[in-house]
Amino acid sequence: MASKTFAIIAGVGPGTGSSIARRFAKAYSVVLLARNPASYETVVKEINSGGGQAVGISTDLADSNSVKSAFDQITTQYSGSALAAAIFNSGGGFVRKQFLELTEEDYSGALASQAKGGFNFAQGTLPLLLKARDTSPHPPTLIFTGATASMKGSAECAAFASTKFALRALAQSLAREFGPQGVHVSHAIIDGVIEIPRTKGWTFDHEDAMLSPDAIANSYWHLHTQPRTTFAFEMDLRPYVEKW
Amino acid sequence: MASKTFAIIAGVGPGTGSSIARRFAKAYSVVLLARNPASYETVVKEINSGGGQAVGISTDLADSNSVKSAFDQITTQYSGSALAAAIFNSGGGFVRKQFLELTEEDYSGALASQAKGGFNFAQGTLPLLLKARDTSPHPPTLIFTGATASMKGSAECAAFASTKFALRALAQSLAREFGPQGVHVSHAIIDGVIEIPRTKGWTFDHEDAMLSPDAIANSYWHLHTQPRTTFAFEMDLRPYVEKW
Amino acid sequence: MASKTFAIIAGVGPGTGSSIARRFAKAYSVVLLARNPASYETVVKEINSGGGQAVGISTDLADSNSVKSAFDQITTQYSGSALAAAIFNSGGGFVRKQFLELTEEDYSGALASQAKGGFNFAQGTLPLLLKARDTSPHPPTLIFTGATASMKGSAECAAFASTKFALRALAQSLAREFGPQGVHVSHAIIDGVIEIPRTKGWTFDHEDAMLSPDAIANSYWHLHTQPRTTFAFEMDLRPYVEKW
Amino acid sequence: MASKTFAIIAGVGPGTGSSIARRFAKAYSVVLLARNPASYETVVKEINSGGGQAVGISTDLADSNSVKSAFDQITTQYSGSALAAAIFNSGGGFVRKQFLELTEEDYSGALASQAKGGFNFAQGTLPLLLKARDTSPHPPTLIFTGATASMKGSAECAAFASTKFALRALAQSLAREFGPQGVHVSHAIIDGVIEIPRTKGWTFDHEDAMLSPDAIANSYWHLHTQPRTTFAFEMDLRPYVEKW
Repeated sequence: MASKTFAIIAGVGPGTGSSIARRFAKAYSVVLLARNPASYETVVKEINSGGGQAVGISTDLADSNSVKSAFDQITTQYSGSALAAAIFNSGGGFVRKQFLELTEEDYSGALASQAKGGFNFAQGTLPLLLKARDTSPHPPTLIFTGATASMKGSAECAAFASTKFALRALAQSLAREFGPQGVHVSHAIIDGVIEIPRTKGWTFDHEDAMLSPDAIANSYWHLHTQPRTTFAFEMDLRPYVEKW
Repeated sequence: MASKTFAIIAGVGPGTGSSIARRFAKAYSVVLLARNPASYETVVKEINSGGGQAVGISTDLADSNSVKSAFDQITTQYSGSALAAAIFNSGGGFVRKQFLELTEEDYSGALASQAKGGFNFAQGTLPLLLKARDTSPHPPTLIFTGATASMKGSAECAAFASTKFALRALAQSLAREFGPQGVHVSHAIIDGVIEIPRTKGWTFDHEDAMLSPDAIANSYWHLHTQPRTTFAFEMDLRPYVEKW
Repeated sequence: MASKTFAIIAGVGPGTGSSIARRFAKAYSVVLLARNPASYETVVKEINSGGGQAVGISTDLADSNSVKSAFDQITTQYSGSALAAAIFNSGGGFVRKQFLELTEEDYSGALASQAKGGFNFAQGTLPLLLKARDTSPHPPTLIFTGATASMKGSAECAAFASTKFALRALAQSLAREFGPQGVHVSHAIIDGVIEIPRTKGWTFDHEDAMLSPDAIANSYWHLHTQPRTTFAFEMDLRPYVEKW
Repeated sequence: MASKTFAIIAGVGPGTGSSIARRFAKAYSVVLLARNPASYETVVKEINSGGGQAVGISTDLADSNSVKSAFDQITTQYSGSALAAAIFNSGGGFVRKQFLELTEEDYSGALASQAKGGFNFAQGTLPLLLKARDTSPHPPTLIFTGATASMKGSAECAAFASTKFALRALAQSLAREFGPQGVHVSHAIIDGVIEIPRTKGWTFDHEDAMLSPDAIANSYWHLHTQPRTTFAFEMDLRPYVEKW
């Protein structure tokens, strides 16, 4: 069923994930992963009815069995295809609490959703990305979505910063291991509020103060199209009025 | 039984942990935590027979029940005492493997030993450190031991870098939350091979090429004695010949 | 004479500067600055004969009088035009010497070519970039070219690292001051050997081991086209086999 | 005249420089450098009348001739002595201005006072530090004083950030070149307001909100006493209530 080349986007909600899916669907068949089918159904329908190819698979990225089952399905459905790009865009793990109010479940849950989720996703995608090196139109690419908390811990943010730092460490380690093998591993630092349905009504002192999911998707596409002579590992994205 | 002021050192083996224990035992009663009593028995005996006060408690820092039970015991035994310093020096979580050989257990185990271990230790010690603010001779201090992998991911090192990055994020977050409350939180980056029984025979091109555990302990003591006007968060320690 | 929109590229030699000039000349009239006319004459001719518009102005960027005179000429020639992009790509200031062999002239010369050169260039371009905010097709953009030495000092590299660190500080400061005013300031870290005529013959263990100037230029163009909701400040570019 | 071992402190005013001088004068003869004799006369007198040994030499660190003449005098006076420590603590180069108000003199002046000043000081002291390796009681030490602006550029702070970044690059490069030769090079990041006569009246929301010059001096002394097995390169110092 599948087209010759495909991309997998993990962590698809109504914001960045959907924009990335739409952007990569202009060139590739896309597989969208999210725990809740409601998260991807709209964009899957939209892409398919617009002439693209999209499928959604309900997956809990923090659960290795769930991830394994998703990749079994992917391997079967896309057996003759090349995985050109894999994007880890999970939004989970955020919790803001005074440290002494934080439970072990909060902390472990945060580690599971980004660090372990990223690990599971990389374990699933890297064998396919390695296999696609000769057939992918651009070097096969694995991109992780970071945040302000990837670079800086802050008060009442220990759990989220821990898991986002861990995800960045994973990305760096993979870039250094798989870059020389021809897979492009990148980490994007999203520093600011993204304009998604949930944040639509938020007000700011200036207009255009929220990150555009479509612009983020364009930058991810740019990363994907870089030749192996000239890979970017990291790019920080923020609104022009953001303090940093 | 306990003296007026005490310190807790977690992750005590024959190297840095023992040196830290000896250094802090010059001023305080010390509690040493390690999974295996064999790890602390020698130094506990040495300190007690030298006129100091030391007790060891067998604790698995990655297991919150084990940590809870250790702190129940500490709270009882040291009920009238002030916790002046707590040092997290766990050596666990190191694994070097090609990423696609890394199992989920490897990765989760690494996250558990440093990130979750650090979390459990901070949960146990911070209430005691806060309580000691008026009675501790120096601002109550919580120090985490980092590594080269706290700053940089590398090939075949994804698990260890993830957990060490996470531990640094935890330390930064706690410094920003508890510093203004008067607790000194620090993170030391140990960048190089430490001279411990296991590494004793290793050879290098130059003499003095391994970190001295006693010198590390002296720097931790220095951090502990800084007044709250002048807290260091981070210090990187390496042998003079180390490449970095 | 000038078209409606133009770009200025400073530090044009046969490598990256020429590629950036060619890339931006697809959309804009370009002004190329270099001390020696021989550095830009070939690419100016090539662009003009290919249907683009290019002029070269002999300029010593480290000399404020020379820069002032270049910008007087630019302001006159492009009085009705919008400056959409300005790129500082000076290659000067590199010197490798044992520190005690380094002369004051070496050190001051390094500071002059990157730090002062970047300062002079920013002083000349920012007023024009601010004026272009309403008419430029993309947010007016000021990009600085960094290097490995922008992030890390190294033995025998004190002068070059000092000036490259200073240039990065300048870029960061300008991003924080002019970003909120709508000018996009970026810093690209070029980490590796660029394939230019001088390095053409160099051999490496792997093919494609040198950065492509055209790919660098494409990434600069991508930075330029980002909307103000989603500005990147920094991007690191290196060959897939580069150690970092 | 001189005692067996001495230290040189450059950039001595009534604050940190004087505290460092007093601290190192407990162990060594000290030479204090400042442009204006008024800056060091009080502390020189204080040290000498307290049983220590101190001399001041009027020196403009940004001017290589002035530095050369100071070191000629030092070499003569301390010909049989070992230079155990050299501390660069210049306070110059700070200017806060909107970038387009910044003059070339402002920017060059900033580069001269920290970057070139640090270069001149390192050129003068390193030959003496190398010579002292066998006789200094601790590894000969060269410490540079950094600031918040060493790590982060900010709006209206381009000149100061440029020169402080450059000084850090210098320190890193020297640490990597001279560390393996047995000279301990360090960089301290002073992040906050220091309590000196000029800031005495400043008010804050909390007590103890300013850095203590004596505590900074103690940390410098600690750095100096580290053995070569265990050198710290960098330490960040800030008041407990400082935002960072």
